[in-house]
Amino acid sequence: MPQMRKNPLTGKWVILAPERAHRPESHLPHYHPHVEHHIECHFCYGNEQITPPEVLVYGRQEALPNSPGWELRVISNKFPAVDMEKHFSVSCNNSMEVYSYAEGKSEVIIETPHHSKNMAHYSLKQLELVLNSYKERYIAISNEKHIKSVLIFKNQGKSAGASISHSHSQIIGLPILPPLLEQELLLSKNHYKEKNTCIYCDMIALELKEKSRIVFENDKFISFMPYAAKAPFETWILPKFHSDSFEKLTDSQIKNLAEIWKVVLYKLHEGLDNAPYNYFIHTSPAYENTENYYHWHVEIIPRTTTPAGFELGTGIFINISTPEENAKILREIEIK
Amino acid sequence: MPQMRKNPLTGKWVILAPERAHRPESHLPHYHPHVEHHIECHFCYGNEQITPPEVLVYGRQEALPNSPGWELRVISNKFPAVDMEKHFSVSCNNSMEVYSYAEGKSEVIIETPHHSKNMAHYSLKQLELVLNSYKERYIAISNEKHIKSVLIFKNQGKSAGASISHSHSQIIGLPILPPLLEQELLLSKNHYKEKNTCIYCDMIALELKEKSRIVFENDKFISFMPYAAKAPFETWILPKFHSDSFEKLTDSQIKNLAEIWKVVLYKLHEGLDNAPYNYFIHTSPAYENTENYYHWHVEIIPRTTTPAGFELGTGIFINISTPEENAKILREIEIK
Repeated sequence: MPQMRKNPLTGKWVILAPERAHRPESHLPHYHPHVEHHIECHFCYGNEQITPPEVLVYGRQEALPNSPGWELRVISNKFPAVDMEKHFSVSCNNSMEVYSYAEGKSEVIIETPHHSKNMAHYSLKQLELVLNSYKERYIAISNEKHIKSVLIFKNQGKSAGASISHSHSQIIGLPILPPLLEQELLLSKNHYKEKNTCIYCDMIALELKEKSRIVFENDKFISFMPYAAKAPFETWILPKFHSDSFEKLTDSQIKNLAEIWKVVLYKLHEGLDNAPYNYFIHTSPAYENTENYYHWHVEIIPRTTTPAGFELGTGIFINISTPEENAKILREIEIK
Repeated sequence: MPQMRKNPLTGKWVILAPERAHRPESHLPHYHPHVEHHIECHFCYGNEQITPPEVLVYGRQEALPNSPGWELRVISNKFPAVDMEKHFSVSCNNSMEVYSYAEGKSEVIIETPHHSKNMAHYSLKQLELVLNSYKERYIAISNEKHIKSVLIFKNQGKSAGASISHSHSQIIGLPILPPLLEQELLLSKNHYKEKNTCIYCDMIALELKEKSRIVFENDKFISFMPYAAKAPFETWILPKFHSDSFEKLTDSQIKNLAEIWKVVLYKLHEGLDNAPYNYFIHTSPAYENTENYYHWHVEIIPRTTTPAGFELGTGIFINISTPEENAKILREIEIK
């Protein structure tokens, strides 16, 4: 039974999910670098009955649910850290032991039927499907009772925490506001109160002026490396237009977003030799009106270095490179 | 030139240290599992001239500085993330680009002359030397002008961030208070204001009563796994007596600390099959009187799982085990 426990020394929640220790580690060997199908992979065609039933599917025509022929599937997480069996309700044994059932929603997006396709090599159409599924499931989960925030994220590569090699993303809805999002909301709210502007819009204006940290831009979106990048090649994607919520994206904006997404992931893939990475989308929490001051964005964190004792002990990151140098490297990579 | 940059969205500092990218990665193969000496290792006997000069040495009798014959050496870090060449002084290009020179002090403790000895197998005497050197260098660095906090930490194993396999620890003095220490100080101060007790002393009293999370205890120290453990087998060591400052340890307390240190590291080494880990010491910052409310402690974080997109995006940790189960496993491991 998943439990949340509150750290009495920081006030932060931790999720205890011993059941997740039982999930299979399936970094199956790629017998061929471009194998389309792997008979033992739970996320490949033909194994749909092994996974939990799909909650969303794209591309399958007139066939039975949970059968092959799809372009993208979303399923419940078989080994969830949080689930909806009980409610989030804070109890305590004493002032040091504060806990709750770890309520939440956890889903997996199987982004492609192709067993070993890297997201950097998806077609634009496939990326549009992925982004559309993010939006659809974001809206569905954020409308669930008790869900206060939803995180969409991807772990690419074993050392970035992916336990299954077939390319997939995850969506987790939580009954609490995560501390990192809370901090961003607070800071952008304060900035708005003080200057009557969105701090992200101000940052985009500066990056457009300075140019040195920009990776790519198109009509509607910009990608740059943040001035105080925590890790080498940390790269963000943001809408140039002010918008607090990812799920407000229109179809034409999704097309534009798919383009920059593809370019940025391709450049990172080429520039870093297929390094493992994580990305996540920070967007307005479901229950709060943040329209004026918050600005949704994607943060991509390549895993080229290891946070160690210093980072764990201080909360300060050491970046052994500069975003200006790194952005230049990525700008110079040609798109084939 | 190392630089600190302030993240305008969180107010947190990041250290940019591109020079560190040039440090050698020397996880030399262990030709023999217990090789005492490796000719290519910078931390072994005979290579003292390759390292920066020692700032502290134990065990060498009547020989030249920076020559063999020592039991423990402390040297300046050859590839420091921070140094004392310039001062910490906050400047800005604009409201988004706030920076400073990354002033600080960075030293390496070569804990043993033995090339492949694991700390879990040190003699008590060797561990006492290590803890003594921590104390001596802590006092020296915290007395440097501009230094506000000092972190003692260790990275054991390549995947825990150690770039050199010969066992060593690090000490870094910083001109700022790290956010994680700041948070602990604030929370323990508030607890003291409210209850007139130290929150860590209260926690120790609870652990002694409940027993389920205790790993080991002796006269003066206790080791337990925290209730809201962030990672499997996260283990703490604390003095049972109230003390805010590591450097106030007496010689007899250091003997007692060396004993529990050895037992705990041995149990983790056996229980987790020599898993990589980090540890760090949280102690009162140099400049503030925290005597009443703060309580120094060691946090050991084995690296058995990988924080991934969820943790990076939320700041919430998922622990796939419980501290009660894990503490029981370690309690049952016999000391040989």
